[in-house]
Formats: sequence, C-alpha cells, structure tokens
Amino acid sequence: MNEYKNITGIDKDILEKAREHTANLAIPLRALGKLHLYGERLCAIFSSLEPNVGQKRIFVMAGDHGVAEEGVSAFPQAVTGEMLKNFIRGGASINVLAGQLPAEVTVVDMGIVPEFQEAGNLLVRKIRKGTSNMAAGPAMSREEAEQSIRTGFEVCSHFIQKGAQLIGTGDMGIANTTASSAIASAILGKSPKEMAGRGTGIDDQVYHKKCEVIQRALEINKPDPEDGLDVLAKVGGFEIGGIAGLILAAAAHKRPIVIDGLISTAGALIAHQLNPLVREYIFAGHASVEQGHRHMLSHMDLEPILDLSLRLGEGTGAALAMHILEASSKIFNEVLTFEEAGVTEGS
Amino acid sequence: MNEYKNITGIDKDILEKAREHTANLAIPLRALGKLHLYGERLCAIFSSLEPNVGQKRIFVMAGDHGVAEEGVSAFPQAVTGEMLKNFIRGGASINVLAGQLPAEVTVVDMGIVPEFQEAGNLLVRKIRKGTSNMAAGPAMSREEAEQSIRTGFEVCSHFIQKGAQLIGTGDMGIANTTASSAIASAILGKSPKEMAGRGTGIDDQVYHKKCEVIQRALEINKPDPEDGLDVLAKVGGFEIGGIAGLILAAAAHKRPIVIDGLISTAGALIAHQLNPLVREYIFAGHASVEQGHRHMLSHMDLEPILDLSLRLGEGTGAALAMHILEASSKIFNEVLTFEEAGVTEGS
Repeated sequence: MNEYKNITGIDKDILEKAREHTANLAIPLRALGKLHLYGERLCAIFSSLEPNVGQKRIFVMAGDHGVAEEGVSAFPQAVTGEMLKNFIRGGASINVLAGQLPAEVTVVDMGIVPEFQEAGNLLVRKIRKGTSNMAAGPAMSREEAEQSIRTGFEVCSHFIQKGAQLIGTGDMGIANTTASSAIASAILGKSPKEMAGRGTGIDDQVYHKKCEVIQRALEINKPDPEDGLDVLAKVGGFEIGGIAGLILAAAAHKRPIVIDGLISTAGALIAHQLNPLVREYIFAGHASVEQGHRHMLSHMDLEPILDLSLRLGEGTGAALAMHILEASSKIFNEVLTFEEAGVTEGS
Repeated sequence: MNEYKNITGIDKDILEKAREHTANLAIPLRALGKLHLYGERLCAIFSSLEPNVGQKRIFVMAGDHGVAEEGVSAFPQAVTGEMLKNFIRGGASINVLAGQLPAEVTVVDMGIVPEFQEAGNLLVRKIRKGTSNMAAGPAMSREEAEQSIRTGFEVCSHFIQKGAQLIGTGDMGIANTTASSAIASAILGKSPKEMAGRGTGIDDQVYHKKCEVIQRALEINKPDPEDGLDVLAKVGGFEIGGIAGLILAAAAHKRPIVIDGLISTAGALIAHQLNPLVREYIFAGHASVEQGHRHMLSHMDLEPILDLSLRLGEGTGAALAMHILEASSKIFNEVLTFEEAGVTEGS
C-alpha cells in the first residue's frame, strides 16, 4: 500500500501565475467568482496555464453490503445487480448525464453478490460477493480493505494513462448510505443520528433502525479514526474502498477528480485520512440532501459546486458539476484579454 | 402594447402526468430533487411529455445609460461598445460559455452610443443613443419604454418561430446595475442601500455615490410601482426593456426562458409587473453576488439554479444553468422506467 505515499501538493507557482492571467481577461476583476477559483486550481493541478479537461471519465463503483440483511434500505439487495445491468445497457441516470457532457462511463464490480461477465463498459474486480454484516463484526478484513483501494487506484491509473483528464466518481450498492454514514461517524466523531439520512427514501421506523445499526457497528468494531484502512475494513464497503483508490490515483497522477454525494465523500474521507493532500485534487460535485454530507465536506474544507437536492448517487452530481469545471477551464483558456479585445480596463 | 395580454399559465394537467412519469423512472422516488421539478415544469411549459430544449439561443441586450455621467461605474461608457465588438468577434465570456453548450448568441443593440452596422450575430434596434440621466429626469419617454419592450418581444418571437426551444437572457451596458437597482428599489419598495451592490467592482466612495444617485432618481421621477412601464421609463434602460420583452415573448409563445443576474432580473420585474404569469416560464439561472438580487427573485417566488458568486452579466449565469435544464429534460425523456429496466421497485 504505497499508492498514497508519493502524492505531492498542487503547483502553487502556477496558481499565482493563473491568478495574474485571470486579472488580464476582459472581465471585471474576478467577476466570474468561483469559476475563476476552479479554473486556477485546474491550472495548478495540471501544472499548466492551458488546462484541458476535454476527456472525461466517470467510474461507477458497485458493491453489496452484508448490513442490508438488517433491513436498513427501502430497496432489496437484488437491486444492486439489477441497476448494474441498467448501467451496462445505458438506461440509467448516470448514462444520460454522462452522454450529455459527453463523458465515458466505466462500471466496476468491486464485490456485488451476482456474477457478471466482463463486457462493454463493465470491469469485474470482485473482492468478494458482498461485505459481511458490520453490525455483527468487521465488514471486511484489513487485506480486503487494502485490495479494494489498490483496485480503484489501478483502474483509475489505467484510464489516466489512456488519456482521461477529468475523473468523476459514482457508486451503486444497496445499504451503502449506512456504511458511508458509519464511516463519517467514525472519522468525524459524531453520532449516527447527526450523520445518517434517509438514503433512497426510508420512513421514520427504518431510519431509527438504521441509526441503531450504525451505533451497534461502531460499538462492536471500534474503528480507529486515525487509521483510514481500519475504518474502511470495520464499517466500509468494497465500492467505497474503490472510490478512495480512484481519488488517491487522481492525486498521484495530478488529475482533477469530482466526487459525487454521500458515498463518494465517504470514500474521500478514507483517502483524506490516508493522505490529506488529496483534497487539493478534489472538487465536491454537489451538496447532497443527506444531512451528514455537509459536515463530511467541511471536515476536508471542501465546498460543493452545486446544490440541487440530489440524493441518487451513481455519479450524477459529479457529472453535472463536470460541465461547470469545463466551463471554468474554457473561460481561462478562451476569453480574450483586455488588450487582445481592445477593451478599456476599469479603475 | 398588447404583447402581454394573451399570456396564459403553464399546463397543470401535463404537470400532474409528468409527476406520474417521474415516479415510474428507475430512480428512488424524486431522488434527483430539483432536476425533477425543472423537467416537469418544462413539460408543462411545452404542454408535452417529451420536452425538447436542444435548440438554445441567448440574447445579449445592450444599451447605454445617461446616468453613467454621474460616475457610478468602475468602467467608462466606451466599454459598452468595445464589449459589443468583443461579443461579435466571439472573444467574450458569453461566447465561450454559449459555445460549450452549444447555444447561439444574438447581440441586440437596443440603444448604445456608438453606431454599429448590422452584421453577423448583431441586430441593430437602437431606440436612441443611450438613455437620459435618470438622476436629472426620466431615463426615457413612456413611448420609448413601450418601444424597447416591443423590440425585445419581436426579436424573441422571430427566433422562436425559427425553432428556438430554450431562451437565455443577457445584458451589456455600463451603469446598468445602477438602473437595475433603481427598478428593484421602486418595485420592491426598498432603499437603494438594500438593493444596490458593487457592480463591476466599485470602491466605498463610488458605492455611496451610486446609492445617492439612485435615491435622487427615485425622488425626482417618482416611478409608480404599480405601473411597470412607468418604472422602466423613469429609471430603466433600453436593454432592460428589451429583456422584459424577451420574457413576455417566451411566455406568450410557451417557451422556457432562463434569466441571468441583476439586470436580467430587473427586466423580469418589469415583465412580471405587466403580467405575473410570466414567472411560470422563467428559470432563474443563478444567485448573483449583487445583494439586491435575492430579494428580487423572492419577490417573484423564483429560486436560483446555481450559486457561483457570479457578477458579470452578458448572460453567463443563464448559459451555465441551461446545461442543468437540458439535463432535467434528458433525465425525464431518456431514463428507463423500473419496468423497462427490470429493476425491483422500493417499498
């Protein structure tokens, strides 16, 4: 597990030069607000004053969760595999939003229960057929936690080497908001009631059970908040480890990565615990309806790009935010300067 | 001025049917939050369960302002014409963001000081070479106010008849935040200090002068808040009247229209005063940094799609939001239902 050891921060000299370029554009000083911040950070990530995010790829990491047997979700476990089929045939929300950009979608079976053949946009990298029930013991072994991160790292590195310039993260896995909220509780030291939300749409009764299940998982497993691998192993999921690996790879290869909502942010918390420098490469796609999500972003000092009351996952919020990030790079690269445009500068 | 008399509301029956369709999509119930609301409203606007916003056009309405002579802006008046040249050659922010979508850009000279020949994407529809200084008397006559609205109405109607399916509004005009804040003060009954902001970036001294100039304009002209034409004539601008006309035309022809920031929203306030039904056709692109802007949107019960600390104008915030609106229509049209996708529905 040396994937995260060699990560260095973004290029601060280029960041300064990028701010100088922004000031010369035929735009009142910094009048495009956050677009300027995003565009300049892209420069610093690529170490270039001509950042290009034209080639986009979104990874939908899928895994099943033993804790689903506690009845914490509005949907049965079979839906994980059924939705995987939908991602492969192109009929799901993430396919539609990726197609609009366009971005490529790669689906990774990190450990779902049913068996799928690798084909089309599906990669099968099964760690195991679903995690164990974290309410009764660790979700996975420490070795499996390492393997899930390494798998995400390798998959992402492969596509960066093939040219991917902007990465998006997404997830699929029934009961994975339970695991994600448990990770947030463990790392942020907050109660399950503060961190957990309604997932795909559970009622009060199931919500109280969900909080109780997370509490039990934390008490039984005692994850060490100072040890990201331990948290992932005790209360995480294979797809969440995979997402942490994607993020570590993006940072290691100096590529921007847009995270989606609750589950992707749980993966980011694991990656951030392993190496806090990853936050310089992360853009938070959106603010989820899930109540714990904003606290998780704040913990990493990240601000969401969009706030559209999304709570779907799949990478949908990341896909939407990618358009804004590309806009920021185009503003930086393509708008004429005051001098080029023959426009008088302001006082 | 009968442009706004025949406007009727959006189709409430289709809205109900659209909500039923959303519930059948292979998505946990309404898990894409605001995207569902936007997509369903597009259905009700088009009276169709297959809303299509593929053909997009952004109008950049330009005008000069006599009140610029009071020294209320960080830029000299000549910049209005200089930026018009930049819009025509394609080097400005709105060209870049429209090109990304893609959307067509039409620039309309509603009354700038310099003379331009009509060519390329520029339409010359000059009412007059700049308004009069509203701090010394009415900005324009009532007839000119009517003419500016009618001009916007006709330009927009023309392009809708040629196929435009999604309209965006934008503006250019040195000192037009002063006029827009005056309109907001008049219609909302709030003080200039509450409504005015820093425009393109003025310091404290100029800001105090700007508030004082607006106060003087309101005292001298006494615009009638119940009469949108009177407000436009007394403290408005030719491009602001043009924007009001665009909005009335979109509503009359049942097309969605995305408004940009402060100046476009001032135009929307005028259109809304003439016929409040226009709000059913308006999408607020973003929340401007200008402090009065949120109050103006609230007055029309509109919520911004984006919040990116923009304060540029040109239609930039509208252009960015158009991507989100198109996403909402694609989700509605293209995502498979639970049944089509073979996915088990939730409890």
